[in-house]
Amino acid sequence: MNNKLNIENHFLVIVRHGESQWNQENRFTGWKDVELSEKGIKEAEKAGKHLLSEKFEFDVAYTSSLTRAIKTLNLILSQMNMNWLPVIKDWRLNERHYGDLQGLNKSETAEKHGEAQVKIWRRSYDTPPPLMSVSNPEHPSHDPRYKNIDSKKLPSGESLKNTVDRFLPLWNQQISKDILAGKKVLIAAHGNSLRALIQHLENLSEAEIMEVNMPTGIPMVYELDSTLKVISKRFIGDADEVQKAMAAVANQGKKS
Amino acid sequence: MNNKLNIENHFLVIVRHGESQWNQENRFTGWKDVELSEKGIKEAEKAGKHLLSEKFEFDVAYTSSLTRAIKTLNLILSQMNMNWLPVIKDWRLNERHYGDLQGLNKSETAEKHGEAQVKIWRRSYDTPPPLMSVSNPEHPSHDPRYKNIDSKKLPSGESLKNTVDRFLPLWNQQISKDILAGKKVLIAAHGNSLRALIQHLENLSEAEIMEVNMPTGIPMVYELDSTLKVISKRFIGDADEVQKAMAAVANQGKKS
Repeated sequence: MNNKLNIENHFLVIVRHGESQWNQENRFTGWKDVELSEKGIKEAEKAGKHLLSEKFEFDVAYTSSLTRAIKTLNLILSQMNMNWLPVIKDWRLNERHYGDLQGLNKSETAEKHGEAQVKIWRRSYDTPPPLMSVSNPEHPSHDPRYKNIDSKKLPSGESLKNTVDRFLPLWNQQISKDILAGKKVLIAAHGNSLRALIQHLENLSEAEIMEVNMPTGIPMVYELDSTLKVISKRFIGDADEVQKAMAAVANQGKKS
Repeated sequence: MNNKLNIENHFLVIVRHGESQWNQENRFTGWKDVELSEKGIKEAEKAGKHLLSEKFEFDVAYTSSLTRAIKTLNLILSQMNMNWLPVIKDWRLNERHYGDLQGLNKSETAEKHGEAQVKIWRRSYDTPPPLMSVSNPEHPSHDPRYKNIDSKKLPSGESLKNTVDRFLPLWNQQISKDILAGKKVLIAAHGNSLRALIQHLENLSEAEIMEVNMPTGIPMVYELDSTLKVISKRFIGDADEVQKAMAAVANQGKKS
């Protein structure tokens, strides 16, 4: 274990998946199950190497039902020689569902809905995107991976607030209990499901969390007290990468 | 689903991991956590492509705690676009533990223990290999992946009979129940843990099972009735590969 952490405290490592094939095309991805790009694969492997070199250990990992997060996790575990780690794949760690925007790129969206409206969808905490019709074959209710989920719970499009609301039961009922039981937890997920987690853990306002952007492929370790209050956090990676990530996060805070 | 199967019946797909890095060196591997070779990676990807082209669906997958089986499964799931499938990693699907023979190649073993003795270890159903000392750092009791397993259950060396004995509780308590509940199960495991399964499912004698060798990377689908009695089995792959695999299995039967 990392000897900078107080062993009496709990810790949690979170990582956002590496770049996906749709990042380069700047399309709204949401629940669309795209692959990691070559760059994304390298980011994940690097994250695993850093966690290994700092001798991190884990008891369980959580990830979403989406390939780009699962493969990020698998690549990390492979680098750490920890392929054997129990992995829980849960849809509640999925990216925010972008409704009918999924698949559109920014300019297509601006053409279709107007730039002012697009800004609202991207920057508002609680405005959902235009909903996807349940009859759309892309709707989650037609996807076998969600067949055991109550269809009323499956989103047709989510605001960040909706994402937080569906994530929190997983946190409250499972992940936080694992941590309190002394398990060392690793979470590989998405920009907005990690925002949901960060807002809850750091007790951030709606305005504050909208300014937080986790960097891709750079793990962050939280040290938590016995009530899961945050004692410290730091990124794990090359010194220059970590500095960039920290500066970016700091600037994000100032912009608001 | 495969339309050649009667949908009233259950089915189970099993696959032996692709070639590992130690296969080429002809060393006793057992619980040593070696990687797949390049050939093994290709075998696994091919297995996934065949399962995809025959439109197999699964509800859950089981694999061992060893990298070569886990990666075989991950490669299959990736080819099938089923990375989201729940995966249970269980040590009771591990390869037979080869005790103090682990790491030795055939000629080193013959030198150390004599050829006659080596034959007995390889061909006997119930003769365990020389046991590994618990103080050996390679002993499973020192490996974090087994830290939640009762140390009395962790082997220091196993005969095939011992492997059957530790596999059966997993079958009886979990896998068979999943199948009877209507779940479609995929198992990616090892030569001897699959022998344990095959002996049980096909009700083979000790002499018969010693003659069965599952080919690597060629999935086999069992059709099972409501009491899990075998109705049919067939390999899934290129016609020529399947024919070779079937002929090999048939010849194995005749040799006994």
